[in-house]
Amino acid sequence: MTKIVILGTGNVALNLLRAFRSSKTAEVVQVVGRNKNNIPQSEDLPSFTSDFKNIKEADIYIIAVSDNAIRTVSQQLNNEKGVVIHTSGSKGMEVLPKNSERGIFYPLQTFSKERTPNFSEIPICIEAENDLVLSQLEALAKGLSDTVVKINTEQRTALHLAAVFMNNFTNHLIYQADEICKNHQLSSELLKPLLRETIQKLEDMSPLEAQTGPARRGDYKTILNHMGLLKDQKQREIYSLLSQSIQLTYGTEL
Amino acid sequence: MTKIVILGTGNVALNLLRAFRSSKTAEVVQVVGRNKNNIPQSEDLPSFTSDFKNIKEADIYIIAVSDNAIRTVSQQLNNEKGVVIHTSGSKGMEVLPKNSERGIFYPLQTFSKERTPNFSEIPICIEAENDLVLSQLEALAKGLSDTVVKINTEQRTALHLAAVFMNNFTNHLIYQADEICKNHQLSSELLKPLLRETIQKLEDMSPLEAQTGPARRGDYKTILNHMGLLKDQKQREIYSLLSQSIQLTYGTEL
Repeated sequence: MTKIVILGTGNVALNLLRAFRSSKTAEVVQVVGRNKNNIPQSEDLPSFTSDFKNIKEADIYIIAVSDNAIRTVSQQLNNEKGVVIHTSGSKGMEVLPKNSERGIFYPLQTFSKERTPNFSEIPICIEAENDLVLSQLEALAKGLSDTVVKINTEQRTALHLAAVFMNNFTNHLIYQADEICKNHQLSSELLKPLLRETIQKLEDMSPLEAQTGPARRGDYKTILNHMGLLKDQKQREIYSLLSQSIQLTYGTEL
Repeated sequence: MTKIVILGTGNVALNLLRAFRSSKTAEVVQVVGRNKNNIPQSEDLPSFTSDFKNIKEADIYIIAVSDNAIRTVSQQLNNEKGVVIHTSGSKGMEVLPKNSERGIFYPLQTFSKERTPNFSEIPICIEAENDLVLSQLEALAKGLSDTVVKINTEQRTALHLAAVFMNNFTNHLIYQADEICKNHQLSSELLKPLLRETIQKLEDMSPLEAQTGPARRGDYKTILNHMGLLKDQKQREIYSLLSQSIQLTYGTEL
């Protein structure tokens, strides 16, 4: 059984803790965090400490804290044996302790405390400073997920960037769509079936094929009509820029 | 039984034809179109004509053609009795025949020939020039969908605009995310679980609550890092504008 210590009490830490519970090859022996109250009371905790001097021995230490705190937490780990990894999509190996075996374990998903997505479907991207650590991380990841990929630092940054487009930016556009509804006394519930179908469609075809709308077909009249309706400056800029970008993609004359 | 003639052979026309097949109160007696070959051969057609002189008598004529063709088709319908409606999100009643009873029947969904979304879940937005026609359209819509809403022209345009954000623009961002993956030798399949969770999350919380990412938390370092990686000019502009807009929404200091 691979012994794991998780450092952190945030969304990623909590979701990893939950995922390892059903693992047959790895076991979380301790969670380390500043504040136990960050963890929902209902959560079944193995052992918890806020004291870095009381960290248990483990095979792998997973630092699952916010990007800017990784280095600070790492500095407390300089005397531990075992592999030390972090879960960030954007930080490199250099923020981890110099004297440890180091690696990165990046689950490509958006996590929140309220939701527990099925970890077996979440791609885990791994990276390590040598092949031995890499194969340890591979075994660990395969215990949780059906999709494990070895990538390099540039690829991980690119994936994180792509995830910003895929999750953060689409979510913000959905927010803007809801706002437009509210501003015209319309329930944003009306848009939900459209959102579901937008995504479902992409199980059958690529987004390049699935694209529709005024910008795609070069329907200048509708675009002008929409711009006339938009009063919010940022919404106008977004409408204009994304219409241009669609036009550029398809070579539509606007 | 309400008799229906559908004018058009595009995605909306075809999906309406399919939906009316299971209706107990309305029946499509004819499809009118320029070219029968636009309709998949497997489709079970009631009766088809390309000749506007041979249009059958019906209670309701549904013009389901592209926005710019509605007026031309309307001009061929000036002698028919019955209600004439179109299915456009952005055109007004004035493009319909002057001598007919007129209305609008806007199903809020993205349609394609390859897919048949469940019509009962699709909101149908109706509008008419008098209450009698409105109640006829209401009955027709309720035969197809569980969600029927009476709206005015401005609301319909706003809904269409919101749908552009919700469908066209999110689809384009998903395309950009896929492109970023491809440019770094990564399968875009890796992002699919993230996309699914992005949307699933919104069944439990609003997009305002669901927002995460570097712009949301004011993580300037990651934003600069991402901008450094983006070579495509339009992708850079999109990244920058949407990050600003998120910042503005949450008052995050960037």
